[in-house]
Amino acid sequence: MKIGVFGTGTVGKALGGKLLAVGHEVMLGSRSADNPEANAWAAEAGATVGTFADAARFGELLLVATAGAAVLDALGSCDAGDINGKVVVDVTNPLDFSAGFPPSLSIVNTDSQAEQVQAAYPEAKVVKTFNTISAVVMVDPASVPGHHTIFHSGNDAEAKATVAALQQSFGWPAEDIMDLGDITTARGAEMYLPLWLRMFGVVGTPFFNINVVRG
Amino acid sequence: MKIGVFGTGTVGKALGGKLLAVGHEVMLGSRSADNPEANAWAAEAGATVGTFADAARFGELLLVATAGAAVLDALGSCDAGDINGKVVVDVTNPLDFSAGFPPSLSIVNTDSQAEQVQAAYPEAKVVKTFNTISAVVMVDPASVPGHHTIFHSGNDAEAKATVAALQQSFGWPAEDIMDLGDITTARGAEMYLPLWLRMFGVVGTPFFNINVVRG
Repeated sequence: MKIGVFGTGTVGKALGGKLLAVGHEVMLGSRSADNPEANAWAAEAGATVGTFADAARFGELLLVATAGAAVLDALGSCDAGDINGKVVVDVTNPLDFSAGFPPSLSIVNTDSQAEQVQAAYPEAKVVKTFNTISAVVMVDPASVPGHHTIFHSGNDAEAKATVAALQQSFGWPAEDIMDLGDITTARGAEMYLPLWLRMFGVVGTPFFNINVVRG
Repeated sequence: MKIGVFGTGTVGKALGGKLLAVGHEVMLGSRSADNPEANAWAAEAGATVGTFADAARFGELLLVATAGAAVLDALGSCDAGDINGKVVVDVTNPLDFSAGFPPSLSIVNTDSQAEQVQAAYPEAKVVKTFNTISAVVMVDPASVPGHHTIFHSGNDAEAKATVAALQQSFGWPAEDIMDLGDITTARGAEMYLPLWLRMFGVVGTPFFNINVVRG
């Protein structure tokens, strides 16, 4: 599949690299197509690089991995016709570091980043996922032993199945993917971040996750 | 130990009953001391019943398990001298159901219920814990198989050790109690609730919890 990855940071490169490794074509999108570091990475990895608009045009599926504050601007710089109708995987967290650590959330409680994307592109099939774990765990679930859980939020069952199949190709067992429900459930997944950040401080490495254990 | 439990709902009665079972003296506090249902429960369980002020006077340790919106009013009806200096275990969640389900949080993002209690009673040793699981799991950790995690937030290491010892007497293994840090980390534990509520919807019973798995 042709996949447009928005964002050339740690998450974008980790997901882009894994998508290439499992056989997809990847274009990394960023504000400008001439980011030397992103171009060097893409040349070595076998990806292409473009603007966000290029990546949206390229991708049959779009994966948004920019900073939270950049999401709507990045999507807004594209032709809306290249977004509506597609599966849009939202991996972002609306973290606001303007007051230092710990960050607060710039969208919270009665709304979420994922809902804002869904509202802006009503015909897109937004799936919130992967935002509750580090990039290293996203692409290598076996780096954390045994079962541990990732979440889906989205209105479109077929889109969630497409994303689950991608995640299974990364090594995620189907039974470790928990579908929380519609896109409003992304509030829960995003509001988990402050707890994740504190756990990160305790564990001291990004190689951890939570497993939902049932009685 | 003499323990004052604030709240005569599901959580207050579950924790009160367990504290009695492991050998403590318990007074359940509520707005009025003549709640027939609470009195009937206490008579059978071997607890006593009083106002919040009575329970605060009685307890060497206080355990707050009222509705989130009632916490500061309940504490405010007591003699502050019966609160300051004591370990105050905050089990509450600031859930706001005024707009229906899912609830939002009435305190969130840059503040937390636990921090508000700590700010109101600077000499109290507030420990946030147990708010991330259902009452049935609090008092019967073996109802969920294997390891699963509860969290501590608080400024006083000795108070957290006291609470951990109580939790171990309930059956919680020491290694399943994660100390997140000071009282500001309660934001993370409280902001987890929207995710917990969605998981509850998926799992369909309160017998579940998360286990923090390390790589």
